[in-house]
Amino acid sequence: MTTGDLNDVVRRALAEDVGRGDVTSEATVPTNVRAYARFVAREELVAAGLDAVRVVFEQVGGDEVRFNALVADGEVVPAGGVLAEAEGSARRILTAERVSLNFLMRLSGVATLTRQYVSAVEGTSARITDTRKTTPGLRTLEKAAVRAGGGTNHRSGLDDGVLIKDNHLALAGGVTEAVRRAREAVPHLLKVEVEVEDVSALREALTAGADVVLLDNMAPEQVRGAAAIARAEAPHVVLEVSGGVNLATVRAYAEAGVDLISVGALTHSARSVDVSLDMTPC
Amino acid sequence: MTTGDLNDVVRRALAEDVGRGDVTSEATVPTNVRAYARFVAREELVAAGLDAVRVVFEQVGGDEVRFNALVADGEVVPAGGVLAEAEGSARRILTAERVSLNFLMRLSGVATLTRQYVSAVEGTSARITDTRKTTPGLRTLEKAAVRAGGGTNHRSGLDDGVLIKDNHLALAGGVTEAVRRAREAVPHLLKVEVEVEDVSALREALTAGADVVLLDNMAPEQVRGAAAIARAEAPHVVLEVSGGVNLATVRAYAEAGVDLISVGALTHSARSVDVSLDMTPC
Amino acid sequence: MTTGDLNDVVRRALAEDVGRGDVTSEATVPTNVRAYARFVAREELVAAGLDAVRVVFEQVGGDEVRFNALVADGEVVPAGGVLAEAEGSARRILTAERVSLNFLMRLSGVATLTRQYVSAVEGTSARITDTRKTTPGLRTLEKAAVRAGGGTNHRSGLDDGVLIKDNHLALAGGVTEAVRRAREAVPHLLKVEVEVEDVSALREALTAGADVVLLDNMAPEQVRGAAAIARAEAPHVVLEVSGGVNLATVRAYAEAGVDLISVGALTHSARSVDVSLDMTPC
Amino acid sequence: MTTGDLNDVVRRALAEDVGRGDVTSEATVPTNVRAYARFVAREELVAAGLDAVRVVFEQVGGDEVRFNALVADGEVVPAGGVLAEAEGSARRILTAERVSLNFLMRLSGVATLTRQYVSAVEGTSARITDTRKTTPGLRTLEKAAVRAGGGTNHRSGLDDGVLIKDNHLALAGGVTEAVRRAREAVPHLLKVEVEVEDVSALREALTAGADVVLLDNMAPEQVRGAAAIARAEAPHVVLEVSGGVNLATVRAYAEAGVDLISVGALTHSARSVDVSLDMTPC
Amino acid sequence: MTTGDLNDVVRRALAEDVGRGDVTSEATVPTNVRAYARFVAREELVAAGLDAVRVVFEQVGGDEVRFNALVADGEVVPAGGVLAEAEGSARRILTAERVSLNFLMRLSGVATLTRQYVSAVEGTSARITDTRKTTPGLRTLEKAAVRAGGGTNHRSGLDDGVLIKDNHLALAGGVTEAVRRAREAVPHLLKVEVEVEDVSALREALTAGADVVLLDNMAPEQVRGAAAIARAEAPHVVLEVSGGVNLATVRAYAEAGVDLISVGALTHSARSVDVSLDMTPC
Amino acid sequence: MTTGDLNDVVRRALAEDVGRGDVTSEATVPTNVRAYARFVAREELVAAGLDAVRVVFEQVGGDEVRFNALVADGEVVPAGGVLAEAEGSARRILTAERVSLNFLMRLSGVATLTRQYVSAVEGTSARITDTRKTTPGLRTLEKAAVRAGGGTNHRSGLDDGVLIKDNHLALAGGVTEAVRRAREAVPHLLKVEVEVEDVSALREALTAGADVVLLDNMAPEQVRGAAAIARAEAPHVVLEVSGGVNLATVRAYAEAGVDLISVGALTHSARSVDVSLDMTPC
Repeated sequence: MTTGDLNDVVRRALAEDVGRGDVTSEATVPTNVRAYARFVAREELVAAGLDAVRVVFEQVGGDEVRFNALVADGEVVPAGGVLAEAEGSARRILTAERVSLNFLMRLSGVATLTRQYVSAVEGTSARITDTRKTTPGLRTLEKAAVRAGGGTNHRSGLDDGVLIKDNHLALAGGVTEAVRRAREAVPHLLKVEVEVEDVSALREALTAGADVVLLDNMAPEQVRGAAAIARAEAPHVVLEVSGGVNLATVRAYAEAGVDLISVGALTHSARSVDVSLDMTPC
Repeated sequence: MTTGDLNDVVRRALAEDVGRGDVTSEATVPTNVRAYARFVAREELVAAGLDAVRVVFEQVGGDEVRFNALVADGEVVPAGGVLAEAEGSARRILTAERVSLNFLMRLSGVATLTRQYVSAVEGTSARITDTRKTTPGLRTLEKAAVRAGGGTNHRSGLDDGVLIKDNHLALAGGVTEAVRRAREAVPHLLKVEVEVEDVSALREALTAGADVVLLDNMAPEQVRGAAAIARAEAPHVVLEVSGGVNLATVRAYAEAGVDLISVGALTHSARSVDVSLDMTPC
Repeated sequence: MTTGDLNDVVRRALAEDVGRGDVTSEATVPTNVRAYARFVAREELVAAGLDAVRVVFEQVGGDEVRFNALVADGEVVPAGGVLAEAEGSARRILTAERVSLNFLMRLSGVATLTRQYVSAVEGTSARITDTRKTTPGLRTLEKAAVRAGGGTNHRSGLDDGVLIKDNHLALAGGVTEAVRRAREAVPHLLKVEVEVEDVSALREALTAGADVVLLDNMAPEQVRGAAAIARAEAPHVVLEVSGGVNLATVRAYAEAGVDLISVGALTHSARSVDVSLDMTPC
Repeated sequence: MTTGDLNDVVRRALAEDVGRGDVTSEATVPTNVRAYARFVAREELVAAGLDAVRVVFEQVGGDEVRFNALVADGEVVPAGGVLAEAEGSARRILTAERVSLNFLMRLSGVATLTRQYVSAVEGTSARITDTRKTTPGLRTLEKAAVRAGGGTNHRSGLDDGVLIKDNHLALAGGVTEAVRRAREAVPHLLKVEVEVEDVSALREALTAGADVVLLDNMAPEQVRGAAAIARAEAPHVVLEVSGGVNLATVRAYAEAGVDLISVGALTHSARSVDVSLDMTPC
Repeated sequence: MTTGDLNDVVRRALAEDVGRGDVTSEATVPTNVRAYARFVAREELVAAGLDAVRVVFEQVGGDEVRFNALVADGEVVPAGGVLAEAEGSARRILTAERVSLNFLMRLSGVATLTRQYVSAVEGTSARITDTRKTTPGLRTLEKAAVRAGGGTNHRSGLDDGVLIKDNHLALAGGVTEAVRRAREAVPHLLKVEVEVEDVSALREALTAGADVVLLDNMAPEQVRGAAAIARAEAPHVVLEVSGGVNLATVRAYAEAGVDLISVGALTHSARSVDVSLDMTPC
Repeated sequence: MTTGDLNDVVRRALAEDVGRGDVTSEATVPTNVRAYARFVAREELVAAGLDAVRVVFEQVGGDEVRFNALVADGEVVPAGGVLAEAEGSARRILTAERVSLNFLMRLSGVATLTRQYVSAVEGTSARITDTRKTTPGLRTLEKAAVRAGGGTNHRSGLDDGVLIKDNHLALAGGVTEAVRRAREAVPHLLKVEVEVEDVSALREALTAGADVVLLDNMAPEQVRGAAAIARAEAPHVVLEVSGGVNLATVRAYAEAGVDLISVGALTHSARSVDVSLDMTPC
């Protein structure tokens, strides 16, 4: 994420939270009071979002607060561990508190959940990847959190990858025709992926020349069979699986022989992890 | 939320998802293909976010797609129920699909979780309210989703309400001094709320003239005792509770006699509900 | 006002004044000429707007001009007194001159007029407060100028306070109903103020539970009577007065026993005070 | 002013006044209540700013309010006269009220004051013109208000005209050198105006080839003498006067034989005229 | 290009050209004069940029001008042919004239030059493609102009395709290592292209598993040899050529057996074609 | 050009080129690799655009790259000469490469072509000036490049100069009426230029009081005759010529006795000059 984009995301978050000013802190805490503050994990977590927190303090605190991250994105922090510290104007730290935590708790939540999926498939050749089911406005940060958790990123948006899904197939007249059109029209540096739901469609996709096949909503044993066919017929084709994947089933999918397992829940249903900001006057 | 603000939120969501264009749909679906599409609930849910979906279709579809919401925000939709329909250019509907679902699934998730809390306290005089623990960039939409679920909204941001929390108290020199400063400095149309963690602080807050008291991190039985004291000493003071509240404990808090129960999980940890877009050529 | 907002206000002011460039200064003054400049009061005034001037010089002058405020907002400056000085690139100072003066003369004009009202009520318990009758685009700066002049600020906008005025009452069906609806609907940290024009409406407002009452367009003696009633019946209710207030009448209103006197003229009809920029080569 | 620019000015004015929403109107006035409203002059005035008011209603009211201006900018409206009417959603009209009035009262104030100056010089060949002493952010609207009052506009900013003032002269080494540099450097479609404070500088300016001369801070009789010299020596040169001009002295300056009289007070010290919005349910 | 993006490009172009207003047209042409105008080709050309012209008229003319394109992008227009017509407010058409022509002449210039290259390779299997050597701010429009001229588009930017060039190779330690890293790191929907300047590097690229090879700065006969090697060893690999390509040499490169010929001159050195706007009162 | 405007132009250029990130450099070049890079002229050129390149490196490289221009805008650089150097993060330099070159090659192209025209008229009193036929979005940079090449700038846009062209004349009812209206309506600091195509119109323009006359589409000998008439009748009138001017004819026009020769090709048809970025690890 470019610095400018991150600045914009943080600026909007602060605009909606701070609005015309933090009346409570301005009313109750004198200008010259200084504080030391620590972001403390209240449960074990994988850290993510520390860059966003840094920018929050830059925008709110300017020269009046010194912020220091104590862990890097991707590090495992135990309950009670300290992620970052800030020191300076107490008012500024108070104003920055909530937005900082909102970024940190949500993004670390994504990283923490991703790590669970990645651990579940450890030792297989499958990688965990994200989807476009991200929070509107936070895609780049959430995709970075997925990487922090050990996952990989699927395409960034509709413009940097071709993925022909069920609705496209229905409207384009089937796999063969859809793949043909895609190969003809898209720039020569983009691969063509097509979603299939059974072996017959898989065979059609391979014949049509798909570069990547997404096996959607199949049981692990069906995936195993499909993978065997694909490996035999088109060894260079990449295989992705999606649908029906959760922490209980993900290893079975990984062992079925696919390259990638995409999991929407990484970003659309991760709960926030618990982090608090502890402040003391100084 | 003003129309302009909602337009901006949607514009950014589309910018990050669509980027330079939907290469798959443009490559595989001819310009003149038309489709009929329905947003179908795959589980029971409380609807929210339909205005955002409408704006997504306005921005992506212009005159080429007709969008029609079939339920209002706040309605309960059973599994299999249809929330909205769209008809027109198949390409445009495909391009709008993911961002529409991202808004709808997340915001309906917030409304659905809120409804569970609201149902849990039904029959008591306590109301469920949200917090500032919202997704950066989506506060206004999430607060509307909380209302759709039957909850009420706490302050919008740091500028339209005074809430003196533990960190303020530590830095301001205690409850009495903090409340005094707040009453002196803030505009005369804002009330003063102060957070307390025990009965001694509660008494100090009442004496200092707080308009609202937040009982934080107390067990339900402690809350009951605190409420009795407050009602006796300062009947016009509003009582709010927070901390340790979940679906299992919320009713006990409600029955302890408070006016408001604030729940961060409504917005920071609601999972997305499952909605699909079913398309057919037409 | 946040730094970012002030930067935006100044940027727009410079954009409309400087446009594509200061052709006169670029044509007539060589790049390397340096100057020393002083902002001199040509009449006694209360200073305000110096932060805006500082930002003008930052944006126009960058590293090439050093700006230094010699008084703080709120200080009384006699005729001939110096408010600030700048030293550096003569071209840059010339380019910054007009916009700097436009901010300084207008905002000091607001502060100066406010100070006259505040002085007029000295020794009473009434405070002078502003209104929403501000210059479009400059509200935050003008409200700061009112504070610099010793006044207090009313609500910032329609969203951080409830003030039920005559038009609301006509449309809502009267005081009792309007107050009831407001108490029901608005967040619990906002007070409810209602405007009344006679004693009967005042009594209705007190009974309905208004937190603040605005006595509008009453003569000072009527206000005195209304205040006596309110103090007797509802001692905690705040009393504000507006309408018919000018420098000749304001003290009579203050002595009638109200808490706040709001004066639209502070911002909508203050004349600019006279300030000049005197430059010498150096 | 372009439509886009006016939209931006109004959008910012609404953003600062409405913020997150008009809580009073939303709480007290039901959605379906309709109203008829009239903008009524409470004193005689020259109308200006009606386009801005129209845009306020477009942005706040959308399709829910019909706005209709009953007079054009520049028309004289007697006390009690109606400038415009609006009909539709009562909530929307209430939300638009204050910002509408803020534009209308200020800009009509500028037009009204301008008209007084224009009337004062009626029958002479002098025209009243404005300056760059405008409200930051509102220059284009204020310059239109000056035209509505019968005045003419000086340059729009530093980039569309050359005016060499006292500070330039001090830094450029005198009139002759400054005019020479300006003629050399500026695009061939811009004239060169130079400010002089006595007859000697006037002669130097005429000799140097200035196209326009600004006689600054001279008494009317001095201006008369200077004008005679200029007309004799350089009949095509345009003569402007500034400084010491008020409603009592302006005619004397006009009769001294100048072409233009520039008056900063038109924009920097016009008081708002009194306009009210009268609403009735319908 | 999204409608919003095109609106922005046009808005900026108008902002820099129209600024505060078209003083000439406003001064000389009365408001109510209507005109009929035609965009006439003064030389044979391939049309492009008509959408931009349409948006110029929408933004300048609003409801006051009706614009009608008479040809589509990509059509060949003979000298004297009419590309589009506009009818309505003469002032508005005059204001829109220059910016319209600036878009139309430049973009049609790109399309016209592209068509010459495309014609030169007619009958071969090579396609003409563009590069990232586009005008800052106009990439999307110029890439559309290339398509209008019959060319195809290379990647849109650095983010939707992998092209390892000479500078990357020098810094990454050679072809094999660079391709390996790219395959490992980039999303699975992007292909990997690598630039080579001789046969030895070509063989290394094929072995490393490049999906596309760019033969840079080779003579046509060298390209022919390289293509033969590549087709034999890796028939699925796409071959692109660049460097030393002009209208005199392009056919020799095409006949050497490559798939794509990229030509920077299409966008960085196309001259504007000559188009005039002929207006008549109506 | 203000710093802010240049930052915006560069930001948009980077946004369209870099998008979500430079996947190739990030994949192939390790974070810590450093490089030294030189911008080398591959043909003789006049430098322009170095400020834009500096800003590109500031935005892409931040503190990680040190950029240093070795020549100033306007300097002649021989083939093989070095214009600028950069040292630091290899990744950042790679990301900045293309946009830097796109600015530098185009703007130096404009300066180089301008220099050719300026050289062609050397020794005459005619100056070469640009037109409004600039690239949308790049006007200010291109006008600076014209100055770098030794040319002068015509008006910046429609708002800072009056130029009555053929279409205005047709709609305004002829030269006399158009000039009269312009003198009446436009601010007193703008001159009035009128375009004429024959001697009869020239005489009319002189009589009407035009300040500047543009002789359009006349042969050099016609221009000579027209200039003689103008000099005799109105010695202070400035004479400009346009139409039919190219490198072969420009001197003949200059010797015909005009003050200014405007050349659209300077900006609308300059080809990019060839510059490369040579990088070495360091």
